[in-house]
Parts: sequence; structure tokens; C-alpha cells
Amino acid sequence: FEYLERELFKLRDLPAETPDGHRILLKGNAEFLEEIDSIRRHGGDGIGLYRTEMLFFNRTVLPDEEEQFRLYAAAVRAMSPQPVTIRTLDVGGDKFLPDLDLDDEMNPALGMRAIRLSLRHPEAFKAQLRAILRASALGKVRVFFPMVSGVAEVRAAKALLEEAKLELGGKHPFDENLEVGIMIEIPSAVVIADLLAAEVDFFSVGTNDLIQYSLAIDRTNEHLVSLYEPLHPAVLRSLKMVVNAAHAAGIQACICGEMAGEPMYLPILLGLGFDELSMNAISIPRVKKILRRCTKAEATQVAAKALTFATAAEVESYLKSEISARFSESFD
Amino acid sequence: FEYLERELFKLRDLPAETPDGHRILLKGNAEFLEEIDSIRRHGGDGIGLYRTEMLFFNRTVLPDEEEQFRLYAAAVRAMSPQPVTIRTLDVGGDKFLPDLDLDDEMNPALGMRAIRLSLRHPEAFKAQLRAILRASALGKVRVFFPMVSGVAEVRAAKALLEEAKLELGGKHPFDENLEVGIMIEIPSAVVIADLLAAEVDFFSVGTNDLIQYSLAIDRTNEHLVSLYEPLHPAVLRSLKMVVNAAHAAGIQACICGEMAGEPMYLPILLGLGFDELSMNAISIPRVKKILRRCTKAEATQVAAKALTFATAAEVESYLKSEISARFSESFD
Ligand SMILES: [Mg+2]
Ligand SMILES: [Mg+2]
Repeated sequence: FEYLERELFKLRDLPAETPDGHRILLKGNAEFLEEIDSIRRHGGDGIGLYRTEMLFFNRTVLPDEEEQFRLYAAAVRAMSPQPVTIRTLDVGGDKFLPDLDLDDEMNPALGMRAIRLSLRHPEAFKAQLRAILRASALGKVRVFFPMVSGVAEVRAAKALLEEAKLELGGKHPFDENLEVGIMIEIPSAVVIADLLAAEVDFFSVGTNDLIQYSLAIDRTNEHLVSLYEPLHPAVLRSLKMVVNAAHAAGIQACICGEMAGEPMYLPILLGLGFDELSMNAISIPRVKKILRRCTKAEATQVAAKALTFATAAEVESYLKSEISARFSESFD
Repeated sequence: FEYLERELFKLRDLPAETPDGHRILLKGNAEFLEEIDSIRRHGGDGIGLYRTEMLFFNRTVLPDEEEQFRLYAAAVRAMSPQPVTIRTLDVGGDKFLPDLDLDDEMNPALGMRAIRLSLRHPEAFKAQLRAILRASALGKVRVFFPMVSGVAEVRAAKALLEEAKLELGGKHPFDENLEVGIMIEIPSAVVIADLLAAEVDFFSVGTNDLIQYSLAIDRTNEHLVSLYEPLHPAVLRSLKMVVNAAHAAGIQACICGEMAGEPMYLPILLGLGFDELSMNAISIPRVKKILRRCTKAEATQVAAKALTFATAAEVESYLKSEISARFSESFD
């Protein structure tokens, strides 16, 4: 095991590139400063998903712009010169502020959460956006919104971002060209990915929630574990639709869900054309190892073939046979 | 009002046909025998959604084949010679049997429900299927499965239906060609509608749940009412994908959700090409009235135009202007 770890760490300074010269970005998901250090040690290309929830839990008063800025600034400095992609608040009403009193929701996963909650509280949302904008003066920063279901929400969020910029006025510098993205994790966002691509600079697919909502399977429900299928044909087609819509609009397609960190899925995700995968830092070397042995041409074939099956079981059986035939040594 | 009611009742014996001769079926949703009478009085073309939940509520022992058969037989006889489309049990674990003890689900809408539950209890499911098969000897019957998310579930359900047929053996007659359909109400089913169409004889779109899951909006959550948008571009595109997949496979596309009974949506649903709409009986005359004044050609134009907008608000505003320009008198 130690030998393996050492070997994987040797990969740290090698680029995340296929044998036929296709470079994709392998980034880390992070919430705490220690995790940023871990991304660096594991050879990540930056933070693909920086979560901002921790400042908001168990509070009676919302964190103000200044408190948020200090945190984001520390993260941006710690990761610099590599980029940090900051996700705006992604919580349900029950976890936000006790006085919102939304915790009687029957189905919280389908409830008042994430961007919906932010848009209902524009002053609090703009405080977060100003903090992110100010952090963008200190390094390469991007911002993205969770749980977008349609174009109207994106436009509303972007309008508040513009207000936040005006409110900063000449007082604080920020990146005038801050890139704005959205999570693709709600089925409607897949179906209108082309419309959404016209509004933003990048997509980041949240595969965990996308699978949950696409299949109507609560991913925390122990009775349904066997029905939660990342390789469900509808999931693969959805991923393909997202990449195609992104590239048709000239924007980047990323994944920051758990599928990104699972080496077995790498050939499919690479073959579908994703530009960036963001995962737990410790998964980066394993995924990079497969990537450096799997040509883009091979991956494209695997993805195309995977899309021809009618059930997840068939896809999985195909994928396992491909992996043992083509890449088995990389999975040692 | 009385005048209006009388006028609507006059429509009862007129066919549900557009001025340019396109016939579609307007059926009723029913659970109780009184409702079947109401469908007849309102000029419906049969039952498009016959719910079978009521026998299962508040029971400590499941209803057996015989008890179910008596109920379905009564419904089929009451509706005869018009057809009855029977949906297999569509409940969550919490409402099924107390000893299943699933009522601790965090998100019941994403939980152990409907066909998932039936497939976990094959003996109980086959008892229901045998009862439906026996009722099919007494009139025109179709059967369909709720909450299908993929091909594997359909195949499993159909295999149990074949077992149920064998179990009836020579003892009871049934329709050997009983048509089998599925609800399209989970986003994954839309994305793989072409694969599902190869497995079944008809689709019936459950728009309520489809909207709920596509947008990740709990339709019973009072905080999110404004986000539950039947005219969301992703919903309209999904409906179009379902009709197109059905017709490409030569099978029927129906709707049994609330959108079917809303006169304002009729031009779009007709224009998208749906073959059958099933609704509360009292809505049938109102929908028929619009249908008899809206040509298929006009509807096709309206649907095509409705699909060009980026937000539900834009679609709604377009639809309202079209309705006041073209059909206002029909909405009197
Ligand atoms: Mg999420
Ligand atoms: Mg339903």
C-alpha cells in the first residue's frame, strides 16, 4: 500500500494528459484549508468545487461580507496561482437560518434550497457575491450557482451579480471578467442545456444530484441503493447532452460529482468529452494514472459503445470487460 | 353558469375532433364507481387512468386477487364498451402496509414507491396482475405501470405479467393481447423514451410528477408554488420527446396528468401530437369545446412556436396572447 501511494504521488508533477496528447483538468473539491493543501500534494489543477456552506451552519446571524471575504481570500491565496471555482451557498432551508423555519418540508431534496434560497434573500446573496468578487482580485476565481432549473434563475442570479459589482464601486478591486457557471444537476437543466449554455461561461455537472433527480431515487435512502445507477442509459445520455450543448456554445463542461473521482468511469467521461473533472483530492492520482494510459481515441470508442445499451447492468458489464481487456494494469 | 353547464353537456355526444378532422381521445381519470358514471355523463371516451390505490389504504392485510377482481370487474362493466386503462398500485411505502415500515424516508417522493414497491413484492404484484387480467375478459382493458425509470423495471414487470398469465392457466379467461403501458413521469424515462417505446404498447405521461421531478420542485411545497411551471421549456421539450419516441415506435402517447384537463394547454398538447388526454370528468366538455374549434394545423403552429422560448414566463405570455387572438370565445 505504501509502495502504491508513493507511486501515485510520483504522478503529481506529471500532466493529466492522455497518451495521444489530450489534456484535461483534474481538480479537487474542497471546503477547508487543509483540503487545499491536499489538492496540491495530490497534483490537482486547482479547486473545481469550493463549497461555501460551512460558514452558514449553526448560526443565528448570517456571516457578513467581510467574514466571507476573509475565508474565500485565504482559499484563493492557498491555491494560487491555480484557479478556485467557488459555488454559492448550497443548502436547504432547514440548514440555513433557524428563523426561516422551512424544516417542515415533506421532501427537502425537492425543496427550498441552493440558488432558490439565495434568490429569495437577495441582500444575503449579494453579500456573498461581493465577497467572492473581492476574492477574485487575489487570484484566478470563477463562481457558479447550484440547483439551477431554468434560464430565469440564471438571469436573476447574474443580475444580482451585476448589482454586487456596482455596490463594490471603486472601493474594492475585482476581476471584471469573472467567469460565471452553473451546476447541471436538475433534469430540466439537461433538457435545456443549449439555452443555459448561452447564459454562462461553464457547466459543472453534479452527478450525485443529477442521478438522484433523473431517476427519482433519494441517494440517501438505504432501500433504494440498487436503483441508484450512475451507468443508467439516461444518465449517460444526459452527460452527453450536457457536453454537446456546452461545446456547441464554446463553453467548458466539467464534472464535480462523485462520478468524476471513480477511475472506472474515466474512459466514459473522457470519451464523452468532459474538459475538467473535480473530485476528492486523494482520487486525483488514481484518475490521472488511468488517464495517462487511456487514449482519447479509445475513450471515445468506449463512450460511444456504452451509449448503445438499454440498461445500466449491460453498460456495467461492458465497461468491466473493456477495463479488464484494455486497462487492467492501470487499476492495480 | 347553469346555461354554461347545459351547453357543455350538449357536447357530450359530439366527437372529440378538430375542425380539420383530427380525432383524439378524451378520457376520464377515475378511482370510484361514481366517477365512472360522471365520465359517461361528460362524454368521455373511457377511463384513461383507473387508480387502484383505494383498496390498499389503511389495511393490515393486503386485498387478495378475488377482492381486487371484483372491484376491477365492476369498473370494466360500468365503463363497457369503452376501454379502461388500469394502473397498478401507485403508493409510497408509508401508505402500503404498516409492517413495511418505510415511513422514515427522508424524501418519500424519491423513495420506495409504485412499481419499485410492486417489484419488491412479486407475489402481491402478481395477485393484482391476475385480477386485472381476469377483468380484461369482461371488456376492453389496458394495464400500465407507474414510476418506471428504466428498461429493466419494465422487463421485470412484464415477466411477472407473463407469470400471472400462466398462473391463471385455463381457470380464468383473459385478453391474451392485453396492452401494456407505462407512466412517463420520471425524467430518465423521457431521456430513454425510445428504448422504453420498444418495450410497451403505450405511454401515459404523468405531468404532475414529471414536472415535479424534472424541476426538482416538490409540488406540495407551498414555498415553491411559483417555481412549479408546467410551461417550463424543459417540460415542453420533454413532452415533445415522449410523443416523438412513441410515434416513431408506432405506439400511442397519452397524458393523464393535470395538464390534460387544463383547456389553456390543449392547443400545445394537440399540437405536440398527443393521441389521448385523460382528466377529471368535469373537464372533458371544456377541453372538447376547445378541441372542436382548434384545428390541428393551428395547434401544430402554436406548439412549434411555444417551443422556441427560453422561459416559462415567455411561453405563458405567448400562449395567452394566442388564446385571446384565436380561441377567446371558446374560453367563455
Ligand atoms: Mg447538489
Ligand atoms: Mg405519479
